[in-house]
Amino acid sequence: MTSPLSNRQVRLASRPNGLPTRANWQFTDELVPADAPDGGLLVQVTHLSLDPAMRGWMNEGKSYIPPVEIGAVMRAGGVGRVLASRHPGFAAGDAVSGSFGIQTHCTVSAEQVKRMGFAKVDLKLASATRWLNVLGMPGMTAYFGLMDVGQPKAGETLVVSGAAGAVGQTVGQLGKIKGLRVVGIAGGPAKCDWVVKELGFDACIDYKAGDVKAGLKQHCPDGVHIYFDNVGGEILDAALARLAPGARIVICGAISQYNATSAVQGPKNYLSLLVNRARMQGMVVFDYADRYPQAIAELAGYLNDGRMTSREDVVEGIEHFPEALLKLFSGENFGKLVLKV
Amino acid sequence: MTSPLSNRQVRLASRPNGLPTRANWQFTDELVPADAPDGGLLVQVTHLSLDPAMRGWMNEGKSYIPPVEIGAVMRAGGVGRVLASRHPGFAAGDAVSGSFGIQTHCTVSAEQVKRMGFAKVDLKLASATRWLNVLGMPGMTAYFGLMDVGQPKAGETLVVSGAAGAVGQTVGQLGKIKGLRVVGIAGGPAKCDWVVKELGFDACIDYKAGDVKAGLKQHCPDGVHIYFDNVGGEILDAALARLAPGARIVICGAISQYNATSAVQGPKNYLSLLVNRARMQGMVVFDYADRYPQAIAELAGYLNDGRMTSREDVVEGIEHFPEALLKLFSGENFGKLVLKV
Repeated sequence: MTSPLSNRQVRLASRPNGLPTRANWQFTDELVPADAPDGGLLVQVTHLSLDPAMRGWMNEGKSYIPPVEIGAVMRAGGVGRVLASRHPGFAAGDAVSGSFGIQTHCTVSAEQVKRMGFAKVDLKLASATRWLNVLGMPGMTAYFGLMDVGQPKAGETLVVSGAAGAVGQTVGQLGKIKGLRVVGIAGGPAKCDWVVKELGFDACIDYKAGDVKAGLKQHCPDGVHIYFDNVGGEILDAALARLAPGARIVICGAISQYNATSAVQGPKNYLSLLVNRARMQGMVVFDYADRYPQAIAELAGYLNDGRMTSREDVVEGIEHFPEALLKLFSGENFGKLVLKV
Repeated sequence: MTSPLSNRQVRLASRPNGLPTRANWQFTDELVPADAPDGGLLVQVTHLSLDPAMRGWMNEGKSYIPPVEIGAVMRAGGVGRVLASRHPGFAAGDAVSGSFGIQTHCTVSAEQVKRMGFAKVDLKLASATRWLNVLGMPGMTAYFGLMDVGQPKAGETLVVSGAAGAVGQTVGQLGKIKGLRVVGIAGGPAKCDWVVKELGFDACIDYKAGDVKAGLKQHCPDGVHIYFDNVGGEILDAALARLAPGARIVICGAISQYNATSAVQGPKNYLSLLVNRARMQGMVVFDYADRYPQAIAELAGYLNDGRMTSREDVVEGIEHFPEALLKLFSGENFGKLVLKV
């Protein structure tokens, strides 16, 4: 390490009310240290994952993980290259994934390497963007949400909202591999076409074009056995109205509600759970961390034998982070949203 | 059978909008036949069960059982005495429970005896009113809702709404027997006192006196592991806001919503399911019919060894059915509501 490098960072300047704006962010520059800390790593971040969950992390108050503090570098998972290592498990040049934050360089302490799940990734097995998608948090969420919470049985009907999104694309393809009838819900004809033609879903309902309830009635003649919910709001209510007896609803997210400035919309059809002896269950992917390797191996197998594909929406340049994040909430992004640093 | 008897009946005259009124009912009289039908029973009805679920049966449309048709005798479970039997399993004089409907006499066909779960009851084991309460549908609902859906573990905290009602009283007492900390929610000091002093709950929150959320915070310092919901509405939201990680919500009923003339109030705190990896599951007692005998034996044991008690609110006279039913929705009844015929 010879010449000093600059670490460009994006910090949370203030908590948003509704959609985040540029005023909620602060750009800072710090000098990159000349070496890794004792027992730790110095990483050049190459790709960052932009996720709906980030909106929740910007809020104050108790949740499944603490909020990002005002003034702190915004939390984000990513993939990078080790510039310097004083950790026995890593060498300079290794590709690595972990919670780097929205910045170009990341200094990782020995303790962080252990506690925060930094891991070597094999870029021959899959590209960096796929390590943030199918083999990253979205893929893990899809895998454990569908398999553990959804408990699919071959022949059942699975409905997934946000079908063209990061989690939805893997949920649906995995559902097909497991022998389910799979119906997606997505916004606009381009996404719906891709979901059916490229991902092989049995059908996809365009929620922007019309009546989701009517679409579910048409495409789920035997009712919905598993509903994998990424969106909440009216689409959750439409799915509740179409449940099959014994149905399972996986509550993975509620992107329609994350920027709400009034109260969250409760599912007014929740008594369908009673009538249909159904259940609605929340999940947080971190609970399954000790089983990630098994899920990664299975999903990488599907990617490499061609039974599964993926799509990433790559935005270049850390300076575009504030606008790129908003694509998640406008429905503008198509596939897993990745910021190339 | 010598002199002709009159069978007084209450029929559904029209479907109510909101609370049922007397105009929704029609009183009719029919001649009681001189004998039981071939292979069936003629029963004199002595006690009828009045339940919140009846309100749902009065509505049109698909539910877990078909609605009561206009002009039909109102559906109701009850206990009676066999006047005449042409069925090998019953003799005149036997006490019997079954779906008799709101009427003084019931003619039961051979096929109905089999299909609708008519059964001999032992009035030495428990009184007729207890056969409609702890050993009847409310007790079965409490037992399977708590044990199968709630899956209690000793030391956990159970919260039950409608704690002084038919289902709630057995849920809470069974919870105590199973080693749980039990907190009730009921309306008014008389009910709350009874729930704590007579039933042995650890605490009872008076929802009419104030802030249920604050009460849950005070009485559930480790959060709510099981919430058994009989009421829905704001109390469900308060419980959602206080869930422990991995909590189970049993959706048994939603009496606050049954007479709503506008849309049902969805639980706006449902994303607490996600944050707490919790689940909300509906149940219908009929699904457990093949295990009723086991539950009855266990609960009768608790009644007879004094570990469990019960309270019934008995209204006399079939002509008072329309007003008696309303006590369920005003919160006026105290204990299991029974109509003595």
